[in-house]
Amino acid sequence: DEIREFARSVVEKEIEKHAADGLGRVDYALANGGATVVRHSEAYDMRRGNWFLMSVRNGVHPNADKMLKPSFGEPGQCFPLKGSSGFVQIKLRAEIIPEAVTLEHVAKSVAYDRSSAPKDCRISGWLQGRNTDSVIDTEKIFLLSEFTYDLEKSNAQTFDVLNSAGSGVIDTVRLDFTSNHGSASHTCIYRLRVHGHKPDSVSMMAIQS
Amino acid sequence: DEIREFARSVVEKEIEKHAADGLGRVDYALANGGATVVRHSEAYDMRRGNWFLMSVRNGVHPNADKMLKPSFGEPGQCFPLKGSSGFVQIKLRAEIIPEAVTLEHVAKSVAYDRSSAPKDCRISGWLQGRNTDSVIDTEKIFLLSEFTYDLEKSNAQTFDVLNSAGSGVIDTVRLDFTSNHGSASHTCIYRLRVHGHKPDSVSMMAIQS
Amino acid sequence: DEIREFARSVVEKEIEKHAADGLGRVDYALANGGATVVRHSEAYDMRRGNWFLMSVRNGVHPNADKMLKPSFGEPGQCFPLKGSSGFVQIKLRAEIIPEAVTLEHVAKSVAYDRSSAPKDCRISGWLQGRNTDSVIDTEKIFLLSEFTYDLEKSNAQTFDVLNSAGSGVIDTVRLDFTSNHGSASHTCIYRLRVHGHKPDSVSMMAIQS
Ligand SMILES: [K+]
Ligand SMILES: [K+]
Ligand SMILES: [K+]
Repeated sequence: DEIREFARSVVEKEIEKHAADGLGRVDYALANGGATVVRHSEAYDMRRGNWFLMSVRNGVHPNADKMLKPSFGEPGQCFPLKGSSGFVQIKLRAEIIPEAVTLEHVAKSVAYDRSSAPKDCRISGWLQGRNTDSVIDTEKIFLLSEFTYDLEKSNAQTFDVLNSAGSGVIDTVRLDFTSNHGSASHTCIYRLRVHGHKPDSVSMMAIQS
Repeated sequence: DEIREFARSVVEKEIEKHAADGLGRVDYALANGGATVVRHSEAYDMRRGNWFLMSVRNGVHPNADKMLKPSFGEPGQCFPLKGSSGFVQIKLRAEIIPEAVTLEHVAKSVAYDRSSAPKDCRISGWLQGRNTDSVIDTEKIFLLSEFTYDLEKSNAQTFDVLNSAGSGVIDTVRLDFTSNHGSASHTCIYRLRVHGHKPDSVSMMAIQS
Repeated sequence: DEIREFARSVVEKEIEKHAADGLGRVDYALANGGATVVRHSEAYDMRRGNWFLMSVRNGVHPNADKMLKPSFGEPGQCFPLKGSSGFVQIKLRAEIIPEAVTLEHVAKSVAYDRSSAPKDCRISGWLQGRNTDSVIDTEKIFLLSEFTYDLEKSNAQTFDVLNSAGSGVIDTVRLDFTSNHGSASHTCIYRLRVHGHKPDSVSMMAIQS
């Protein structure tokens, strides 16, 4: 009977986490929360009819925000970039102290082909503020994480931010991938999430002083 | 081995329930089933671009039906009303004997802020029929439930209808909320569901006689 | 403690399967993967407003692809065909050796009515190639499966292909249903999936020789 209760409680907790966007962790890069892709390397044309009708605004493909939305276990809910290296740059919903990032690809069991998954990755972040055009001083760009996306692990892989205390407040992240898992033509980003917390007033004062 | 079998059966049952719209209970207020929001207090403008392009039909905001659709664990899949008190009125898919209502807000673990959740609520119901313009005799309005949405409990909270036998057949429900969990500007309704059953012919005759 | 670990691992595996499109099995009939409905018997008009505005291309209703998309436990996410018998024909994403098919209807617990579920079914498949207009030699049509959709079982029911080795490479499947579970007016197809694997080069040579 104890076992039954225990099994039930494990199940309920796991399903709750699953129902809460899979991870049960706040995502400041969620499109529906106000985040948006602001730059990316060249998009790859999958030759789907409806793409021809769409125009590109400020160099950002209208489908780019697919990488800031849940995929619900469906192949194809991704944004494809040309070649095996490239980048995407995301304006977050709010200014945060970053704690971790999650890179997600389609699950192995339902994928037609996973050679388009990114492999070696680097995430950096900075505070862009309202100066959307100006160049950012490289001293103010924080390296948040370097990692390899592993096809043998869970399809949503979370990486803690290096030296979380050391990184300041950010509102923009950039993912650079330098390799993928074999596709010569393109690399697909299913979803990128950014976890963290809002700076409280005390630490905000410390930053400003 | 018995334990293994038991664990597996608990898991399967819980996942089946989760896969069946989270609760495994028929919802007569589901937009996709034909239910629709027919009146509401003033909508709150979240200042998202696309809202400016939308017109309001008969005083009902085009996004109002968001509260009659699944949220899939995503923040923002809600309809925001101005202030900390207000109401929504819903025409159900069919005439039913109501048994329970479920009010859902975004899950704690993925929410940016839950101060916009409704708090003190009252649900009433009546049979509107085809007289969509006429005023309903207050004697024919049933109080279905009064409850407080609790931020510490599961995000989808179900409340049984008071004296279910006493309430007659209804096709319309109204949610009045008189407070929320702290937001001065707006209150978000993620989803409202109405559970019950269709009157059978015997009870229909009893009602008509 | 062993039990705890076991319970947790069972749960994780089951949720992973659930998150992977419910079955954790590749679907070559997924709309998002490039599959498409190419023919069907007469569609049933559910008298929803937006259907009147849609035109029919090449005899295929614009909503037909609903049957090649996930339903996420929502009633109504189906394509309705007129009467209690009919057919649909689907061009798959790619040429495959078929292994199984899955027919899915809405879950019992959230359904308003399941009399529109298909009952006696037959699935056939063939290699259409680029000759989209030409008639197929009946000798080259494989009977993949004959089955009865059972309302008492899980809502997604998988049937293995008869004599899988015997069937050749296919790129098109056809579902014929000869009865449903009681509705005189229409039969709803929530989702049809086709599982299998791509022919490898060795077997491809065998086929061509
Ligand atoms: K996505
Ligand atoms: K919703
Ligand atoms: K569907």
